[in-house]
Amino acid sequence: MEFSELIKVSKVEDVVLYRPFVAPVKGTLCISSHHLLFSSGTEGTMELWLLIRNIDAVEKRLMASSGTITLKCKDFKILQLDITGMEECLNIASSIEALLSQNSLDMMYPFFFRPTYMNMLEGWDQYSPERELAMLADHTDAFRISYINKDFAVCFSYPSVLIVPKSIDDEVLKKSAKFRQGGRFPYLSYYHKKNGKMIFRSSQPLIGPNVRRCKEDEGLLGTIVGSDERAYVLDTRSSQSIQQAKVMGGGTESTSNYRNWKRLQKALERGRILQESLIKLVEACNDQSHNMDRWLSKLENSKWLSHVQSILNAACMVAQCVEREEASVLVHGSEGTDTTLQVTSLAQVILDPDCRTLMGFQSLIEREWLQAGHPFQARCTRSAYSHAKLKQEAPTFLLFLDCCWQLMRQFPCSLEFNEQLLITLFEQAYASSFGTFLANNEKERFNNNVKEKTHSLWSWINSQSEHKRYINPFYSRNLFTIWPSIQPQSLQLWQGLFFRWNSLTQHKNEVWNAINNIINCEFWHSHKDKERHDLHLSLNTTEEQLSK
Amino acid sequence: MEFSELIKVSKVEDVVLYRPFVAPVKGTLCISSHHLLFSSGTEGTMELWLLIRNIDAVEKRLMASSGTITLKCKDFKILQLDITGMEECLNIASSIEALLSQNSLDMMYPFFFRPTYMNMLEGWDQYSPERELAMLADHTDAFRISYINKDFAVCFSYPSVLIVPKSIDDEVLKKSAKFRQGGRFPYLSYYHKKNGKMIFRSSQPLIGPNVRRCKEDEGLLGTIVGSDERAYVLDTRSSQSIQQAKVMGGGTESTSNYRNWKRLQKALERGRILQESLIKLVEACNDQSHNMDRWLSKLENSKWLSHVQSILNAACMVAQCVEREEASVLVHGSEGTDTTLQVTSLAQVILDPDCRTLMGFQSLIEREWLQAGHPFQARCTRSAYSHAKLKQEAPTFLLFLDCCWQLMRQFPCSLEFNEQLLITLFEQAYASSFGTFLANNEKERFNNNVKEKTHSLWSWINSQSEHKRYINPFYSRNLFTIWPSIQPQSLQLWQGLFFRWNSLTQHKNEVWNAINNIINCEFWHSHKDKERHDLHLSLNTTEEQLSK
Repeated sequence: MEFSELIKVSKVEDVVLYRPFVAPVKGTLCISSHHLLFSSGTEGTMELWLLIRNIDAVEKRLMASSGTITLKCKDFKILQLDITGMEECLNIASSIEALLSQNSLDMMYPFFFRPTYMNMLEGWDQYSPERELAMLADHTDAFRISYINKDFAVCFSYPSVLIVPKSIDDEVLKKSAKFRQGGRFPYLSYYHKKNGKMIFRSSQPLIGPNVRRCKEDEGLLGTIVGSDERAYVLDTRSSQSIQQAKVMGGGTESTSNYRNWKRLQKALERGRILQESLIKLVEACNDQSHNMDRWLSKLENSKWLSHVQSILNAACMVAQCVEREEASVLVHGSEGTDTTLQVTSLAQVILDPDCRTLMGFQSLIEREWLQAGHPFQARCTRSAYSHAKLKQEAPTFLLFLDCCWQLMRQFPCSLEFNEQLLITLFEQAYASSFGTFLANNEKERFNNNVKEKTHSLWSWINSQSEHKRYINPFYSRNLFTIWPSIQPQSLQLWQGLFFRWNSLTQHKNEVWNAINNIINCEFWHSHKDKERHDLHLSLNTTEEQLSK
Repeated sequence: MEFSELIKVSKVEDVVLYRPFVAPVKGTLCISSHHLLFSSGTEGTMELWLLIRNIDAVEKRLMASSGTITLKCKDFKILQLDITGMEECLNIASSIEALLSQNSLDMMYPFFFRPTYMNMLEGWDQYSPERELAMLADHTDAFRISYINKDFAVCFSYPSVLIVPKSIDDEVLKKSAKFRQGGRFPYLSYYHKKNGKMIFRSSQPLIGPNVRRCKEDEGLLGTIVGSDERAYVLDTRSSQSIQQAKVMGGGTESTSNYRNWKRLQKALERGRILQESLIKLVEACNDQSHNMDRWLSKLENSKWLSHVQSILNAACMVAQCVEREEASVLVHGSEGTDTTLQVTSLAQVILDPDCRTLMGFQSLIEREWLQAGHPFQARCTRSAYSHAKLKQEAPTFLLFLDCCWQLMRQFPCSLEFNEQLLITLFEQAYASSFGTFLANNEKERFNNNVKEKTHSLWSWINSQSEHKRYINPFYSRNLFTIWPSIQPQSLQLWQGLFFRWNSLTQHKNEVWNAINNIINCEFWHSHKDKERHDLHLSLNTTEEQLSK
């Protein structure tokens, strides 16, 4: 099927575009295979390119001789097009809908995006297990590289190259994989250099109603911790969910079979409940009524902030085990691809200053989300405006980003990147010109030659022109764990994201720009380095004191 | 009665002081006539001076041989003292309570505060009607000074020197005063230089159930507006309240008797309802439960943000009449000393760039709150922790400050002062070393020689050392009206005030300090003035565009 067959009308004149906070503009609308292009014919031409993949819902309202199309985007933006001619209007709407229904991976825009200024090879090695192992080698020689998953046969959602404990041979891993849902055997997520404790992640063990055992799985976890050490399994499900999982063949580690491993539980919501929470929240944010009680009650009712709080709480629990109790932790829920990753990745941002740098955070996303097999395609097909029946959609990743924003707010000097990076990652996960967030796991990306045929988002973010947009001017490396307050009063709705089509945010941006301009002025850089250093030092000291 | 008779114990050793976010300290507690002084005996002595007037509630818990006193302060801070010896504990508590019960004005601390580095004469002329008239003279010659209230006989809550329309003679004012509750005849609050429209404020007319009339009052309002002009009376009460007021002898202007004056209504809450709202809000902020739903529901239930929204809404309504409809407005409720002042003063911050400077804002407080007769003493005797039966307490002024903070958040470059000034004003209104906020009106302050015997807060705020603490580094004079968004999503709880005994705020302060240090560095000042100017200019332009 050629795209051109789907496009019933490729160009319409005299369309009026309504966007938030700017005056309506009259111009020409063009539809291409992957974009809507609106351009005003007037002087000082205004052009708007909209990736069709970014459209979450198309709503049309027809009058006798005209029509209105409302485009609700996955990034929460709402555009309105007033079109002369009912038929034109219908043709535009159905063209967009037809293009949106094309879900074949290799027809996605990243496979067609060919910027001349970028090199397609760059950015795809943002994280490599070999390099990670080399870095680990400064602290421990307990790990090795394994290629058992090179054809994705042991675990379809794990990458092909893996870091595994040296003391465990590939046969044990294979057996353990067979005993874990989707083959996700316990895998190293994080090594805490300060005390050698580790975070592992996996899927649930398939113990089922008859309490099946797997000596190799037990042995694997037994080898990870010394015989006199204590360790924890954090299950991210409720007791009821675990009971239901048992009936279906799943379950959780029994403390009698996994000695030294104590069980912790922190029930996190997932899937449909999170998606509905997002839908309710965005609906509340767009509510035009001026009723304060109604807004606060809708905000409460969406439960969004409760989810943020719960995830932060679980991540703190893991960080506490590692840092304060000096114990290793295994985290899992059912499949180990959603709540598990929220918790393990957030715990690393809390614990590890390396994850709080611009590059380190990208590596974290690459390692703990992309290579770890979070099914981005399934989760991000639809966003908050879709009326479609929910399938596998869930704002799992967005919630993680929101938690990072809360950390950023509470520790404004401790993260090298700023809010804009988090917003960009959210947007890119839902609709992108880059291949990074395509498909559901490494296997699918490999089979579709994503690395060979698309550009990497990281290459773009790290390019000279983009990179500086994401830098926090107040950053000062903080070697300590940043323990967030998870009191409800300490958590806030992420206005910069959820209200960013709002004038308010524009004013805030002005201040942000002012700060950046001041700090980045060359003069300052060349003459003030010492004072700036001292300033950061003193800030850092305070944070250290407070984080103790 | 001598203070010393009230103090049963003046010094206690081995007291342990608990403050928010710092480790407990052991030391000595001393009680003087107006202060609690805690000092640790250790090296690097830590001293805490607490104005006894700042204490809102004293709670004691006694054990066999010791006791705990919790001091809940009017500025929302909570301190705890662990004391060895039950009797010592009881003595301290009863001494504090006895000192707190001293409510005679001339026994207040401002009458004893004698800093050597300050001049008692300074700061008391922050606002003078004569100077105001001189400034008005550049734009209009329609006003004159009147001394009819020189002995406060015409209106006890108006100042002795008044600016009145030239075309109205003193006899008319006297008659109008007799027709208005408490003698508060329509008085010039603001002259909008752009179009010559004005805001007046008054108390309700005493029309009563029989619709009494006063030709002079009607004439006064008739003279203010031309015969072909339209003007508005904004009543800040609900229709029901107005009906009740009529029965009691009050009421509102009838449109038949006050031609050209159209009636507007915007019901604002006052008195006990506001005080209870503050109590509920502060209780919610201190809630230690980790339940997000509970917090959001308590926040909603306190209605605080609804009150903020309503006041902003009413102020925007007045500003709109003046700026967009080019009509003068008279604002009143019943007494004209509470909601009236919230609305008229906030409308001026919205409309007038002069009120958005550090000095201009002080003049506004002096003119529209202090000289306008807001009964600070009655309203601020108790704060959010008092268990005492509520009398006349109400956070009227705090709500105004909160509205200013919302403006500051939405227009971060348009106000010359920062959040710290608003917090300081709140604290000083409730407990102060200065005489500025003492008593309920100019008459009481005059009778008690406040200007002669106490220091002015303004003198302190404008002193070289203090002044810079209140400056917004991003300020850039914005000549336009700043129209705030009053959508509930645009309003936020003032964390910097209500959570300031919270570590969160401390981190934010670090960033604020960093910004200030960067901007204030001498080098920057001397070399970067031009660029800084350009930057501000571009910021300003954006704000102007947005505020249009």
